[in-house]
Amino acid sequence: MIIVMTSKATLKDREAIVKRLENQGYMVDISEGKERTLIGAIGANVENKEAIMNQLSTLPYVENVVPILKPYKLAGKEIHESTEFDLGRGVTIGGRDILVMAGPCAVEGQERILEIARGLKAAGVKVFRAGAYKPRTSPYSFQGYGLAGLKMLDKVREETGMLIVTEVMAPRDLKHVEKYADVVQIGTRNMHNFELLKDCGKCSKPILLKRGLAATIEEWLLAAEYIMKAGNPRVILCERGIRTFETHTRNTLDLNAVASVKHLSHLPVVADPSHGTGRYELVAPMAKASIAAGADGLMLEAHTNPGEAISDSQQTISIKDYRALKKQLAAVAAAVGRKL
Amino acid sequence: MIIVMTSKATLKDREAIVKRLENQGYMVDISEGKERTLIGAIGANVENKEAIMNQLSTLPYVENVVPILKPYKLAGKEIHESTEFDLGRGVTIGGRDILVMAGPCAVEGQERILEIARGLKAAGVKVFRAGAYKPRTSPYSFQGYGLAGLKMLDKVREETGMLIVTEVMAPRDLKHVEKYADVVQIGTRNMHNFELLKDCGKCSKPILLKRGLAATIEEWLLAAEYIMKAGNPRVILCERGIRTFETHTRNTLDLNAVASVKHLSHLPVVADPSHGTGRYELVAPMAKASIAAGADGLMLEAHTNPGEAISDSQQTISIKDYRALKKQLAAVAAAVGRKL
Amino acid sequence: MIIVMTSKATLKDREAIVKRLENQGYMVDISEGKERTLIGAIGANVENKEAIMNQLSTLPYVENVVPILKPYKLAGKEIHESTEFDLGRGVTIGGRDILVMAGPCAVEGQERILEIARGLKAAGVKVFRAGAYKPRTSPYSFQGYGLAGLKMLDKVREETGMLIVTEVMAPRDLKHVEKYADVVQIGTRNMHNFELLKDCGKCSKPILLKRGLAATIEEWLLAAEYIMKAGNPRVILCERGIRTFETHTRNTLDLNAVASVKHLSHLPVVADPSHGTGRYELVAPMAKASIAAGADGLMLEAHTNPGEAISDSQQTISIKDYRALKKQLAAVAAAVGRKL
Amino acid sequence: MIIVMTSKATLKDREAIVKRLENQGYMVDISEGKERTLIGAIGANVENKEAIMNQLSTLPYVENVVPILKPYKLAGKEIHESTEFDLGRGVTIGGRDILVMAGPCAVEGQERILEIARGLKAAGVKVFRAGAYKPRTSPYSFQGYGLAGLKMLDKVREETGMLIVTEVMAPRDLKHVEKYADVVQIGTRNMHNFELLKDCGKCSKPILLKRGLAATIEEWLLAAEYIMKAGNPRVILCERGIRTFETHTRNTLDLNAVASVKHLSHLPVVADPSHGTGRYELVAPMAKASIAAGADGLMLEAHTNPGEAISDSQQTISIKDYRALKKQLAAVAAAVGRKL
Repeated sequence: MIIVMTSKATLKDREAIVKRLENQGYMVDISEGKERTLIGAIGANVENKEAIMNQLSTLPYVENVVPILKPYKLAGKEIHESTEFDLGRGVTIGGRDILVMAGPCAVEGQERILEIARGLKAAGVKVFRAGAYKPRTSPYSFQGYGLAGLKMLDKVREETGMLIVTEVMAPRDLKHVEKYADVVQIGTRNMHNFELLKDCGKCSKPILLKRGLAATIEEWLLAAEYIMKAGNPRVILCERGIRTFETHTRNTLDLNAVASVKHLSHLPVVADPSHGTGRYELVAPMAKASIAAGADGLMLEAHTNPGEAISDSQQTISIKDYRALKKQLAAVAAAVGRKL
Repeated sequence: MIIVMTSKATLKDREAIVKRLENQGYMVDISEGKERTLIGAIGANVENKEAIMNQLSTLPYVENVVPILKPYKLAGKEIHESTEFDLGRGVTIGGRDILVMAGPCAVEGQERILEIARGLKAAGVKVFRAGAYKPRTSPYSFQGYGLAGLKMLDKVREETGMLIVTEVMAPRDLKHVEKYADVVQIGTRNMHNFELLKDCGKCSKPILLKRGLAATIEEWLLAAEYIMKAGNPRVILCERGIRTFETHTRNTLDLNAVASVKHLSHLPVVADPSHGTGRYELVAPMAKASIAAGADGLMLEAHTNPGEAISDSQQTISIKDYRALKKQLAAVAAAVGRKL
Repeated sequence: MIIVMTSKATLKDREAIVKRLENQGYMVDISEGKERTLIGAIGANVENKEAIMNQLSTLPYVENVVPILKPYKLAGKEIHESTEFDLGRGVTIGGRDILVMAGPCAVEGQERILEIARGLKAAGVKVFRAGAYKPRTSPYSFQGYGLAGLKMLDKVREETGMLIVTEVMAPRDLKHVEKYADVVQIGTRNMHNFELLKDCGKCSKPILLKRGLAATIEEWLLAAEYIMKAGNPRVILCERGIRTFETHTRNTLDLNAVASVKHLSHLPVVADPSHGTGRYELVAPMAKASIAAGADGLMLEAHTNPGEAISDSQQTISIKDYRALKKQLAAVAAAVGRKL
Repeated sequence: MIIVMTSKATLKDREAIVKRLENQGYMVDISEGKERTLIGAIGANVENKEAIMNQLSTLPYVENVVPILKPYKLAGKEIHESTEFDLGRGVTIGGRDILVMAGPCAVEGQERILEIARGLKAAGVKVFRAGAYKPRTSPYSFQGYGLAGLKMLDKVREETGMLIVTEVMAPRDLKHVEKYADVVQIGTRNMHNFELLKDCGKCSKPILLKRGLAATIEEWLLAAEYIMKAGNPRVILCERGIRTFETHTRNTLDLNAVASVKHLSHLPVVADPSHGTGRYELVAPMAKASIAAGADGLMLEAHTNPGEAISDSQQTISIKDYRALKKQLAAVAAAVGRKL
């Protein structure tokens, strides 16, 4: 960190800071300028860094305290350039192949999801998505089938051979979701549910971590760091739209974040243009744009009959739409050296 | 809801919608205009309303679907104009008296919090705040004392007679927090942790519900609705700053939301200028402004020595500062017909 | 518009509104429900619509007033599905070909811009961009060469045969910019400079209209409507990043807006990934994503030596970078049925 | 500025930077740490600082470039702690007295504004506000009376003795506005209209500078710096609401900015709760909160009959409302040591 002293700071003030930092194990370098003195402090343990930075910033003779190093380590690029890992049944993410995960927003009953899964499977989709536990803004909205929904997903898994990705909303449900899912999803509203992050760090399945509605890229990578630090290195990042002032789209799918994460982290990243835009007419162009921006995969809401979907129907495409889109996605993937 | 048909919608399209709505139990009124036909639908059960609105919006001959009624009922003003309730030991919120809750960000050890509590008690503060469970952006930051911290708070309660407000981060900790706290706090990052909301709905203690970092006022009231619907009517709303583009302040304390909530809901609302601004020099003016805007109380970070606080020291005021501030707050409270 | 009456509105209240609307020339339809009465009003002149909507919303027995029709007409899709137009010397925009505009942020002197232009011309770029008038956040930053800069651009035009796009900042400079530019740019900070918009509506050259930093898509299209209503139908929309809470990127390039505008308007739209991201490492992926999302062109900051650029060097790519990028852009363009 | 080198930077890289900075007249201090080397550079002229910072940030061996000093000088607190100045006829701003400016959004005709002005004058208001030139999002909305409107305002000035504050939208109208207004307003959409800022710097009247819809506090102060640098020291800052994700309020009145500006700048600052909230029921609480937060004045939309106002009627209070509000404002002002 760098401590910028005010122009009125005395030699004594400076010494007080230097002593304090050295007591905490920091190495200190002083840089004296015409208008300001800077104190660089490097090398101590990361655990108390934030506290010390905040404390120093309260001192009357300190103008500013500036961090230098990135606050995440495991999610960064220091060790790996990129990571590819197996999700089960030979399906991988993070390599050359673009992975598509598709399905309805919610598990809507056994027959309906089997029907949708069969259609998607026939269209080449390998991972099926659908929520058994549903985070809903209103307590009066359908809250999901819960454990029964997980069992319906298991049947899809069995019959179609597809992998299953589904959301966990609370630590107490993790054991069930871990049992039935191939990939465990942490939703946007739970990105900062730190207890859930820690528990998912002990989970045996890969974690798909959606970016919080108003989370910065750094906060998102720190949430991944929580999971990795607790022991689970298989984290897939998922950009799903941030909250901005724009009201025409439900959210603002932030592809800058996809490109940034490819630059800052070795973890695979996928994009969700269904939630990201909230409008089915924008799913196709934004899905193509996601791949062009460097995404390793897509998460799409698809349904045999979007007009009857229980949840999010306004952003759901039909299986027929997906068949048409798939050809275009494959062409874009090829154009950027990927395969779909 | 109102369904706006496109200019190309046919009579048959309209009939299809009317039939669908009537099957769901809605009463339907048709309003035929020169350019557009509108279909008003009123009266059915609230449970499937959102799903139907989304489904109708996907139809090619529907231009727009507009909701009419507010989506919350228990948190709204239909039944009560305002609510005052007891927090224990004769301390109430929502009436004429402004309630101040103060203390350090985190429980920092038994002696330190006792020292701070004694100072605040002497300054007239009746409710002590400090986190035993700490939500931290980085997994490398201090994560709080947990259950041991709750026991330290209990000692503060015993010795000083102050009430305790402290945060719960996960359903599994609720039984402990419920036991030791007088008011259970749900933090900003958990406002959309629906499992926690539901569990807090069964809790015997009042709930202080912080607004999510990027939650709209409507979403905040719906989160309160989750708690109330599950059985706990004692919800205190707490505005603590929203995320905007501004970087000078850590967050943007949204006093418009305080004034709006007083207009939309009967629930008491408090403001947290410490987190709301992230800068100690702004705590005093924004605390005064909060009361002037109609807040029923304040939540403040205060410490005997802010420069040594483990967490959030840059937004923490000293007890001496609080003593000076208190007089000003009392003057503003009197100016708007309240008492502190 | 639809007027939603409160549940306490009386028959007399309703009649007062009906009379008021009919006096203004509206046709009125009443839709009476169990809980609410709705009044639909259609057909009057657009000039006073906003005023009436605002006035009605102040009445105590009115709960809400909801607009129905889109507020723009010339920029919408009612008449044209899409528009292609000529920029001069046979260069067009809005058709099958993707148009690339590139150059330094600012005119940096005659020799330097000639050198850059020659490099870009050799790489196949047909439109040269550089600012003679520079909007700068600080009054202490370089403010541009002004008229002298326009003449330097004219020399580029003459020598290379490239078209010139450059910004106008004030009505008084428009005659000069109109003379020397092939396309007149309105910058993001002037999107709501209505006097400038009106003057550009009388200009003989096409207008490139950048989206305001915090402008909604609707406000952007209304700004285009200002230009078109004043007589100039040749408007090119340019998405250049919006302001959000994210700080890793300078702005958030909003490709959702590009896809939305292709859906809502017949006007051509280009994307500016240089300003949109503010980071040169993100220019390539976001340029590719822009084309995949449906953009008709790109605006790029390019320089022979970005490290010496006077302005925006951190988001400027080199000409060598552009040559490499061009091949990738061409591949993505082909994948979505376009040509570059 | 501080240049943070990457961990891979060589001694040669460092020397290249030191030489470059010294050539530009900077004094350089090197601070060598275990993981990083920092280069502090202080003292050169401010004109090229931004360019150099951007250029250095593009170098492969530079990780980050961090500014130290605030970019504004005249608007800051280095010279003055606070400024009070005369607006004419003995009315001042920036001292102990809270200044209220009130009137309709737009000049609506001679008789109407005289009627409103008389009512406000009787209620003790000394400054009348109304727009002759009106920035409107839609080209189909009423655009204001222009010069004729200024003359109507002059009549108000003459008859009532009130001062006039009114908006200028374009440099070409400034001479007229300067002639008829006592305070010249720059609207939120023109805060970054740099040509207008410079011209207002040569104006003989004080300037009321509204904060841009998405302008940071630093950008706002830099806009004031433009005016001051061009020669006009009498700038009044006006917070009028920023654009956020919240849709219940039209804008989000940011009182944190009011309190911050009092801390960062010597200039007087006023708040506009009418535009800031967009809802008349929030004007009173937010007006009181503005004064409590430290505002030196208020700008309010008031009308004899808000339901008939041509513009912004949903956020306009009646003169009767103002009379009631005034008493409450006076009480809050007294509570914070001010007078109204």
